[in-house]
Amino acid sequence: MTQYSQLNPAERILMGPGPSSVSNRVLKALASPTLGHLDPQYVQIMDETCALLREVFQTQNKMTFPVSGTGMAGMETLAVNLLEPGDEALVCVNGAFGGRMKDVMERCGAIVHTVESAWGEIITDEAAAEAIAAHPKAKLFAIVHAETSTGAHQPLVNISKSAHDAGMLFLVDSVTSLGGHELQVDEWGIDAIYSGTQKNLSCPPGLSPVSFSDRALEVIEERKTKVKSWYLDVSMLRDYYMGNASGGRAYHHTAPINMTYALREALIMVREEGLENRIARHAEMHQRLRGGLEAMGLKYVPLHSLHNLNCVYIPDGTEDAAVRSRLLAEYDIEIGAGLGPMAGKAWRIGIMGHACTKRNVDLVLAALKEVL
Amino acid sequence: MTQYSQLNPAERILMGPGPSSVSNRVLKALASPTLGHLDPQYVQIMDETCALLREVFQTQNKMTFPVSGTGMAGMETLAVNLLEPGDEALVCVNGAFGGRMKDVMERCGAIVHTVESAWGEIITDEAAAEAIAAHPKAKLFAIVHAETSTGAHQPLVNISKSAHDAGMLFLVDSVTSLGGHELQVDEWGIDAIYSGTQKNLSCPPGLSPVSFSDRALEVIEERKTKVKSWYLDVSMLRDYYMGNASGGRAYHHTAPINMTYALREALIMVREEGLENRIARHAEMHQRLRGGLEAMGLKYVPLHSLHNLNCVYIPDGTEDAAVRSRLLAEYDIEIGAGLGPMAGKAWRIGIMGHACTKRNVDLVLAALKEVL
Repeated sequence: MTQYSQLNPAERILMGPGPSSVSNRVLKALASPTLGHLDPQYVQIMDETCALLREVFQTQNKMTFPVSGTGMAGMETLAVNLLEPGDEALVCVNGAFGGRMKDVMERCGAIVHTVESAWGEIITDEAAAEAIAAHPKAKLFAIVHAETSTGAHQPLVNISKSAHDAGMLFLVDSVTSLGGHELQVDEWGIDAIYSGTQKNLSCPPGLSPVSFSDRALEVIEERKTKVKSWYLDVSMLRDYYMGNASGGRAYHHTAPINMTYALREALIMVREEGLENRIARHAEMHQRLRGGLEAMGLKYVPLHSLHNLNCVYIPDGTEDAAVRSRLLAEYDIEIGAGLGPMAGKAWRIGIMGHACTKRNVDLVLAALKEVL
Repeated sequence: MTQYSQLNPAERILMGPGPSSVSNRVLKALASPTLGHLDPQYVQIMDETCALLREVFQTQNKMTFPVSGTGMAGMETLAVNLLEPGDEALVCVNGAFGGRMKDVMERCGAIVHTVESAWGEIITDEAAAEAIAAHPKAKLFAIVHAETSTGAHQPLVNISKSAHDAGMLFLVDSVTSLGGHELQVDEWGIDAIYSGTQKNLSCPPGLSPVSFSDRALEVIEERKTKVKSWYLDVSMLRDYYMGNASGGRAYHHTAPINMTYALREALIMVREEGLENRIARHAEMHQRLRGGLEAMGLKYVPLHSLHNLNCVYIPDGTEDAAVRSRLLAEYDIEIGAGLGPMAGKAWRIGIMGHACTKRNVDLVLAALKEVL
């Protein structure tokens, strides 16, 4: 009979594209006693979590809640609720996650037009405006704020305006930006947005924070067909997260109770630090890391780099896997491999949330010097 | 500015329809340091979790894994992968969850025929056979093993044979039965099955164990259309959970790392107790609880009752909500309200996994005597 050893995962310093290192405080919250999902105490914890999410998203959107799945479930939640078969959509593709949005939306039966640029580059305001002019019937315009596959940091404000001027909904993937980069859902006119918990919020993976504007909710109300996914159907989920007409909470599915504890705690930690301070910390540590990496001769892939995810080319003659294995074995440091066409060509070094410290930046630089 | 108090959920004894009480041992595993989802240590933990799931499902199915969502995500995983638009399906409806299966499958574009019986009753072998004869083109036959809304315990063996004789796939909802009732996936000819972690396994909610037979995987391979859900697409997930052609693990989405720790620990606890002993414990505690409830004059809703979920009529003149509130306030005991047409008419008393003890049975009986 197979024997199973006691669970004893290494205490890694997670400096890849996510998950990021989780604080003991959040892990302790995670391990609090499990409540029932309709327990008044749990309903309050969920309400507070949604209120805290509104703060970090900088939105007044009532329909702001954590989807019961990881980041990709958030992407799917936006797509299945806002698109019906035959709808046209505009999707920006300059990396793996833009490509996934296209795939997810096509599975909803949408006709997807793309605005493309090379991996590592951003989508320019002009390219976006041209595509909007070329496809005026598109119902929505979707773009990735922080492209996790390339480290590119996408400006959003002007593109949002162009999309709105054409009457489109403006959708944003903020999986890797929320809580680590400036992001203002209401001010920037974002109609629907999804994120993950395991990046700058430093909560374990398992939930996907999303937010829908009233305009997006109206589009959902006007649907002619049922949402293809029961699990992700916002028209039913709103009776749980916003309360139904009679003020009660309609049972939809059993939420991941303990994960909600962890997310609430992680969001309280963001609040205690202050969102602006947290964003500034990521900017400052980026400068420190960047200085060190460039001094070692490493070159950044994107011209417009994210602060919290640093995608650099692997130097010629360096064995990708060997370096990452040594970092893991000798330093318990995880950095990320390249994804898709970047596999074997780039590393992705994350400084996210709890892992974004001077200590970690200096350590990863020292460790890289040692193994290179 | 809103103030948030320290997280301090009550230590409830969870005796409703789920989640059930979680042991400290599982909560500790949950709070272990977060690994990356491609870390070799995590891959091993996931492999072990899948192997342990095979034991509890009593199956050799290679494609046995936890879906990254709660039980309803498991239901949706089976439906979206096995059905294409225009396919016919047979679904048994004798409670809330059969009804949901119908809804979920219709959203996949399937033409769903139902085999119905009253809430609380089971589907007879004859009714199933008649429906199979009447709809010979149905691709699959789906049934709920443990109907959480009524407490009915559905026999499966003969119906499985009828479905297979007609060339249909046999699908089972085992959310509330896995680990607490006899359930033999291979022996009983179940082609695809889903469950939850938060019932008899006594792990927090957040994952949905599923298993697909080779025959079911062939049906997925022969699909003419893409699976509507990217997040739940088994043709992609198998490259992560079973490894791809080159032996590697293809990144699909970030799995809920810490939840996997908890599930592994919960499954090891099942193994240490012994699956047969665990099932016997649920049977024994059911007899004890049933004896006490019936001695108090309470009547069971279903003729064929589950052991772990006891659905009884609320006595005439008793205020439903007041009784449940007192149990919660005075005893920290949660029992379940009735669902759908059973709302206000029945209670659901769960004795599941870690909560299925003589101490809890005697306590809930004493508490009910006190408040009634």
